[in-house]
Amino acid sequence: MTPDVHPLAGLPEAVRIWEVGARDGLQNEAVSVPTEVKAELVRRLVAAGLRTVEVTSFVSPRWVPQLADAAELFTRLEQRPDVRYPVLVPNLAGLDRARAVGVRDVAVFASATETFARRNLNRGLDESLAQFEPVVAAARTDGLGVRGYVSMCFGDPWEGAVAPEAVVRVVRRLLDMGCDELSLGDTIGVATPGHVVALLDALAAAGVPRSQVGVHFHDTYGQALANTLAALQQGITTVDASAGGLGGCPYARSATGNLATEDLVWQLDGLGIRTGVDLAALVATSSWLAEYLGRPSPSRVVRALAPAPPEESA
Amino acid sequence: MTPDVHPLAGLPEAVRIWEVGARDGLQNEAVSVPTEVKAELVRRLVAAGLRTVEVTSFVSPRWVPQLADAAELFTRLEQRPDVRYPVLVPNLAGLDRARAVGVRDVAVFASATETFARRNLNRGLDESLAQFEPVVAAARTDGLGVRGYVSMCFGDPWEGAVAPEAVVRVVRRLLDMGCDELSLGDTIGVATPGHVVALLDALAAAGVPRSQVGVHFHDTYGQALANTLAALQQGITTVDASAGGLGGCPYARSATGNLATEDLVWQLDGLGIRTGVDLAALVATSSWLAEYLGRPSPSRVVRALAPAPPEESA
Repeated sequence: MTPDVHPLAGLPEAVRIWEVGARDGLQNEAVSVPTEVKAELVRRLVAAGLRTVEVTSFVSPRWVPQLADAAELFTRLEQRPDVRYPVLVPNLAGLDRARAVGVRDVAVFASATETFARRNLNRGLDESLAQFEPVVAAARTDGLGVRGYVSMCFGDPWEGAVAPEAVVRVVRRLLDMGCDELSLGDTIGVATPGHVVALLDALAAAGVPRSQVGVHFHDTYGQALANTLAALQQGITTVDASAGGLGGCPYARSATGNLATEDLVWQLDGLGIRTGVDLAALVATSSWLAEYLGRPSPSRVVRALAPAPPEESA
Repeated sequence: MTPDVHPLAGLPEAVRIWEVGARDGLQNEAVSVPTEVKAELVRRLVAAGLRTVEVTSFVSPRWVPQLADAAELFTRLEQRPDVRYPVLVPNLAGLDRARAVGVRDVAVFASATETFARRNLNRGLDESLAQFEPVVAAARTDGLGVRGYVSMCFGDPWEGAVAPEAVVRVVRRLLDMGCDELSLGDTIGVATPGHVVALLDALAAAGVPRSQVGVHFHDTYGQALANTLAALQQGITTVDASAGGLGGCPYARSATGNLATEDLVWQLDGLGIRTGVDLAALVATSSWLAEYLGRPSPSRVVRALAPAPPEESA
């Protein structure tokens, strides 16, 4: 691959990749992954050049037993001034557990739609947002960075297409309560580029600067990278991705989920956009994890570049 | 999915999909597919709304035994004034066989690089282009439409990145000999959007109008749909795709190949760009063929929308 001699108009010079594979990917694993394997994954992601690596979720172990080791995992990581390890906190109890081990960046997980809020968070949309207010306020008082995830920003399995105005309303609530950045999630992967631009325009019209907005696309319908390109052309510089394409939405039958970080880096490298990521090291990391999990990575780049497994190369 | 309320700037109102699955897809099958199954595939593609369906290749049966039934297959198709059934013709013998059964649109298959010409066509680049001259001339004399495929337009497994100037030279030769349109192939799937724009710009600077240029992307590195979006924004209105993502490059180890028509239609539907294709009918067609071939479609849309097979739904 050679960097493009002719970048498209409007593209940024650098993109911050918000790596979610360790959290979003492994939390969906049917079998529990040992804490040391999770820690090793995070270490390898950092070694590959990623500088924002979401680690885990301080959710109640009763809800997600796979994440019961959140505090233990966090303490095994090397703290570096140039690396952020955000974690999800669903409530004050989770925030307290996170603060106790020195977490500096947290995220809350909101929904753009009423139905998903009720199904995923077990309470109504306004009620769930109200619940985040003391969490965000306490985190800000402690000087933590706070990200607000907004899921179902484009479509919802029960409600269908989601109007940009609905997303704007939730985003404004999250910013007003103190979130310093947002992630717009296409949780079921239905978005197309015009819808992406429409939402970003609606947010700008509501006074939300591009610099506070990240995008989080899923590849369920193969649209994630094209949607990302449309967002980059609109000035977005934070893109969520998952090493090896780990994870996804448990509500979609398809195995495809998060945009694979490798597929994203291939595009950004080609466009001459800096990410700081060493693609070969990242592919090696995802290959290592795929071997551990016992199934091939859904990332096209990983499949194309990874060394052939022994049975194939024979 | 809801059509976007806010299409991106520069996009066309309609796109012609050049469906290559029946030819490019099935010719790579290890087992020979019966002629009637091929004919049924073409019929179903037309019934799903596709109007340019590449059918087969009139190549010597000694080279590609799977395509020995080219003439027989063509005669089984319903000829309609609104449907084009292009076929590949490698030489005058192939053209004669195609004309004998009433073919109205043919295509020749050139390479942008010397190495691929020698490996795939068994002769040098200039020599292979010279061989096409009498084929194209004879086809034009008979009033046939003639497309020129150019493979390896962005990268070559042996030569690395391919300079736009090399592609321009081959394209000019093909137009000068009488081809009325071109297909720019990213045979190994390495292109990124800036490279796409650079090539289209170089072609325009050489006097090649956008209306004569189609794009043919492979998804080996997951880039096909983003590259398509970049091309559409540059005014390209002909896009090659393969139903269910059939086919691909035999030189790449990855199973991923041609851009899946379904993934393309999902994007175009979302952008409000007309294609005439009924996505549900197309997904049903690809599901039917996947069941026949005994393996799942690589198309993300097909996997997401196709009815679950019996063993999964139990």
